[in-house]
Amino acid sequence: MPRARDLGVTIGRFAPGPLNAITDVPGVRIGHVTLIEGDRTRTGATAILPHGGNLFRDRVSAGFAVLNGFGKFAGSTQVQELGELETPVLLTNTLAVGRAMEALVAHVLALPGNETVTSINAVVGETNDSGLNDIRAARPTVAEMRQALEAASSGPVEEGAVGAGTGCIAFGLKGGIGTASRRVDGYMLGVLVQANYGGTLRLDGRAAPETSEADTDGSIVIVMATDAPLCPRNLTRLATRSFAGLARTGSALSNGSGDYALAFATTRGQMPNEMMSPLFEAAIETTEEAILNALLMAGDMRGWDAATRQPRQVRGLRL
Amino acid sequence: MPRARDLGVTIGRFAPGPLNAITDVPGVRIGHVTLIEGDRTRTGATAILPHGGNLFRDRVSAGFAVLNGFGKFAGSTQVQELGELETPVLLTNTLAVGRAMEALVAHVLALPGNETVTSINAVVGETNDSGLNDIRAARPTVAEMRQALEAASSGPVEEGAVGAGTGCIAFGLKGGIGTASRRVDGYMLGVLVQANYGGTLRLDGRAAPETSEADTDGSIVIVMATDAPLCPRNLTRLATRSFAGLARTGSALSNGSGDYALAFATTRGQMPNEMMSPLFEAAIETTEEAILNALLMAGDMRGWDAATRQPRQVRGLRL
Amino acid sequence: MPRARDLGVTIGRFAPGPLNAITDVPGVRIGHVTLIEGDRTRTGATAILPHGGNLFRDRVSAGFAVLNGFGKFAGSTQVQELGELETPVLLTNTLAVGRAMEALVAHVLALPGNETVTSINAVVGETNDSGLNDIRAARPTVAEMRQALEAASSGPVEEGAVGAGTGCIAFGLKGGIGTASRRVDGYMLGVLVQANYGGTLRLDGRAAPETSEADTDGSIVIVMATDAPLCPRNLTRLATRSFAGLARTGSALSNGSGDYALAFATTRGQMPNEMMSPLFEAAIETTEEAILNALLMAGDMRGWDAATRQPRQVRGLRL
Amino acid sequence: MPRARDLGVTIGRFAPGPLNAITDVPGVRIGHVTLIEGDRTRTGATAILPHGGNLFRDRVSAGFAVLNGFGKFAGSTQVQELGELETPVLLTNTLAVGRAMEALVAHVLALPGNETVTSINAVVGETNDSGLNDIRAARPTVAEMRQALEAASSGPVEEGAVGAGTGCIAFGLKGGIGTASRRVDGYMLGVLVQANYGGTLRLDGRAAPETSEADTDGSIVIVMATDAPLCPRNLTRLATRSFAGLARTGSALSNGSGDYALAFATTRGQMPNEMMSPLFEAAIETTEEAILNALLMAGDMRGWDAATRQPRQVRGLRL
Repeated sequence: MPRARDLGVTIGRFAPGPLNAITDVPGVRIGHVTLIEGDRTRTGATAILPHGGNLFRDRVSAGFAVLNGFGKFAGSTQVQELGELETPVLLTNTLAVGRAMEALVAHVLALPGNETVTSINAVVGETNDSGLNDIRAARPTVAEMRQALEAASSGPVEEGAVGAGTGCIAFGLKGGIGTASRRVDGYMLGVLVQANYGGTLRLDGRAAPETSEADTDGSIVIVMATDAPLCPRNLTRLATRSFAGLARTGSALSNGSGDYALAFATTRGQMPNEMMSPLFEAAIETTEEAILNALLMAGDMRGWDAATRQPRQVRGLRL
Repeated sequence: MPRARDLGVTIGRFAPGPLNAITDVPGVRIGHVTLIEGDRTRTGATAILPHGGNLFRDRVSAGFAVLNGFGKFAGSTQVQELGELETPVLLTNTLAVGRAMEALVAHVLALPGNETVTSINAVVGETNDSGLNDIRAARPTVAEMRQALEAASSGPVEEGAVGAGTGCIAFGLKGGIGTASRRVDGYMLGVLVQANYGGTLRLDGRAAPETSEADTDGSIVIVMATDAPLCPRNLTRLATRSFAGLARTGSALSNGSGDYALAFATTRGQMPNEMMSPLFEAAIETTEEAILNALLMAGDMRGWDAATRQPRQVRGLRL
Repeated sequence: MPRARDLGVTIGRFAPGPLNAITDVPGVRIGHVTLIEGDRTRTGATAILPHGGNLFRDRVSAGFAVLNGFGKFAGSTQVQELGELETPVLLTNTLAVGRAMEALVAHVLALPGNETVTSINAVVGETNDSGLNDIRAARPTVAEMRQALEAASSGPVEEGAVGAGTGCIAFGLKGGIGTASRRVDGYMLGVLVQANYGGTLRLDGRAAPETSEADTDGSIVIVMATDAPLCPRNLTRLATRSFAGLARTGSALSNGSGDYALAFATTRGQMPNEMMSPLFEAAIETTEEAILNALLMAGDMRGWDAATRQPRQVRGLRL
Repeated sequence: MPRARDLGVTIGRFAPGPLNAITDVPGVRIGHVTLIEGDRTRTGATAILPHGGNLFRDRVSAGFAVLNGFGKFAGSTQVQELGELETPVLLTNTLAVGRAMEALVAHVLALPGNETVTSINAVVGETNDSGLNDIRAARPTVAEMRQALEAASSGPVEEGAVGAGTGCIAFGLKGGIGTASRRVDGYMLGVLVQANYGGTLRLDGRAAPETSEADTDGSIVIVMATDAPLCPRNLTRLATRSFAGLARTGSALSNGSGDYALAFATTRGQMPNEMMSPLFEAAIETTEEAILNALLMAGDMRGWDAATRQPRQVRGLRL
């Protein structure tokens, strides 16, 4: 399946990095565990690692923003208070956040050098895949969550119906994981999204007629990485801009939406406020493109709707 | 000059009210004072009154949201704490907020029944009109601010280069005051904007080629009124949605932007969360259309740039 | 062991309820699971249920406040967005939050009437009991967490080294669970705390000389219940006041502190702002007394320090 | 009149600076204008200057916190967004905030080097002196506000019924301006308060029997300065701690209270989170002592109550 840019859909004015992926930010690693089993299991987890070292000992600055907080994002208050990330980020489904926290705690406790660690702020995002997945069945397990952490690698990022995006639905179409990146003033900015929300889809500003207006519910988690030396305050401001990219895709921002953005910087420092505007613009367009990639790379899927207790077929977006 | 809808630009899926203006919300009154004098004065003030009575005695529920807080919005902490509006809202220029507060205080002190009032939370929004106006010259005066309050009336709302929009620039074009409204589930939702920001203009999703990418700075104040019985928490959530309408017009959300939204309800009550989604969608599209109206109704203007100390000509948007 | 009031320490000016406990608020139930095993296990969980019915179907209004966010409180963003609680609250240790979420999810999924529920916002608070407990050993288990939920009952509340307070240390002394209540204008206000923080202890304003100034780290979770008909905004304001009670006990509010307050109302409604002041004052003094009860009811304890990997003895406060 | 420390009331464990005043922080300047005229005018303004240079060109990092937002604090959103102060801070009465903003704008526009400045974020705090002052009479004027700015100097700070504290009432006693300072780890921390609130006064933890429990309303503005190199996030955290000092004096934190804290650092830098705890403790005790100094230095005053329209006599605290 082609990505947005392969189809001639070019969002914004900045150039992407070589992979057009969050892994264009040096050091960033992504890992998926994808669970497609029988008629009912369509779920998974996606791990985002800011670098390959012991993150608990070598933390990165981070910021966090909420547009609509109908969601179960874990670890937000400590990120906001201390402005740093001390564990990888795990994305998964709505009812699996506790297990993802367990996996992150076990992961950190087990790292060499952490033998006396007694406090760990696990950061977990989620969207609800119950439209295609038997979400009540307690998958991924804690062990499966750890597989996503262990699978993390740099290089190209698998998109669409993988990892935490396996059972996602967006705009009544198959959603999932998407990514994109931008070069800005010598820095790299990368975004990864878990797209599972609704509204009236716009592709680079134009209405996409095959989507259903009636399907407006759902959520998105947006993770942003950069090697620009940003303080937590400016990372929070950067995270906020991703919601404008979300808005440009036609999101309905409904009551039941859980819209969260987390941004981290792999370089320490304090870029001045006056230099932020290009990064802010890039955050908008990178998010918009990452979402389109999530949709375009997802394909069709047959699964099980846990609310209606019926099988359900969801089509992938085709241009 | 035609408004967006007269030109066939129809934003969103809800129908507008009879005036397609914030004054479609029963009771809401708008007043402008427009100051165009000599070569250098291009400024003014716009008053928004939730109703025609003594607002200090008969308050309305209100919510407030900030996207980027580079601005001088007055009265925000008390609106957030108490969830209510006790004065009209005045919009004006960046260096005139103190005088607008003075005018609101004097207005409230002078109302019959307020003889022993000793605390008044004046609510004032602003954008920077120094691109066309000698903003350092201390206009509007306190007396001119009061003229805007006294001029307030229901009925059609003058748009474009009037009131607090007189000297506005948006997307490198002439900006100003715009308004729109929507009917939603038997309720009315109205928006009035003071549009003075930048980015890459999109008209109903399509790029508008005549704007300059280089002009990305500036601010917007968005005021939203409804007769739906919303509590302050849901008014705050409603206000937040207006930023999605802003994003859809192509805002760059730059470092220097002051993006504020205030929402008030003319009816007391507590509509449940579950009924909010249609209002949220309408808030997005009403804001987008109000902004387009501001641009389309503005026309050309010649004024004085207070930063470069030179005359400046700004064109209005033509479709 | 006597409670504060039994010792003549009378905090504030309002009268307590019959039990001087959070369970004086009609319907509120508390359950503990206490794990004291061998030399190293000193931990547990405490469940707070706003009422005995299906809380997911019959929700209560709630507010949330953070003083210092170095903590892992789960469920906060949805409580803030929607203003309601849809699961019981579990308190436990820092590394057990994921397991507590799992227990709450399983609890809600299993309730009759919840067969098609696919989204659950588990609310969990924690403090770090690693000074007396082998926190890395993954206790309480998910099953043990559910025992706390199942044990919940109205009536007197066990205090001190029980439930989530089993391994707590406060002011270098043994901390734990404490509770208190107040009657205010015909309503009942109750507080339950998990006290595990430091500073220089003050008993009703007077220094308590036996505490160590050097022990200033740690956290507190404060849960407040009332049958006054408060909206989420005023519940948030009420929650904020509890930090003044915390301050009056001599808290150092150190960098490593996780200070969280959650307030819920068992009655729906919108008490006006103007009636809040007595409840605000009562929130301060009830919190102060609940903390003193936690300390006074705790007794001595011998356990295991997970950071130093040594046995440790902590004395209880004696007046 | 003696200050707290002269009376043997020693708050906390850190040593004060040489003046035990906010001006112990190098560069900080304080200026008062005090208006006591006839029977009815008991008001004024107090200016806080972080340094003697052009602050608009040479800004200082700043943070801001609200405990209860029933107040008219101006400039807060920009301080929060950008983390910096670009004008001096003015404190005055509730209905004079607009005039204080006018004075700050005029002050900044007039400074050499600011000839093309077109945007100024005036920062103004207030409390309500209408219990002793004819607050409706529009004093201080803009010109009087500027006198406070021009009077600013380093050295000892006049306390009590001066400047913005002229008409203050606290705990039913005469309130006003107070200050204190602490040395912490080689840095200086200074606090200045405008104390005008109520509750049940505690002096170093002990009840002060002469105050009236019935007088619980009112507000406080707390300004904190340090030469420790703190980022805006940690300045915000520092500002938050001042509310614990407020709580320890017995504040009732009533509905009508406007409790605001602003903290700024005269040195740029990013002290790590792990070094903050001593500064946090010092912020608590410095605020508590500054409040006691405000009360002790205030003396008796006769004035005019603008709400009852009657003369009123208020006693000063005597130990």
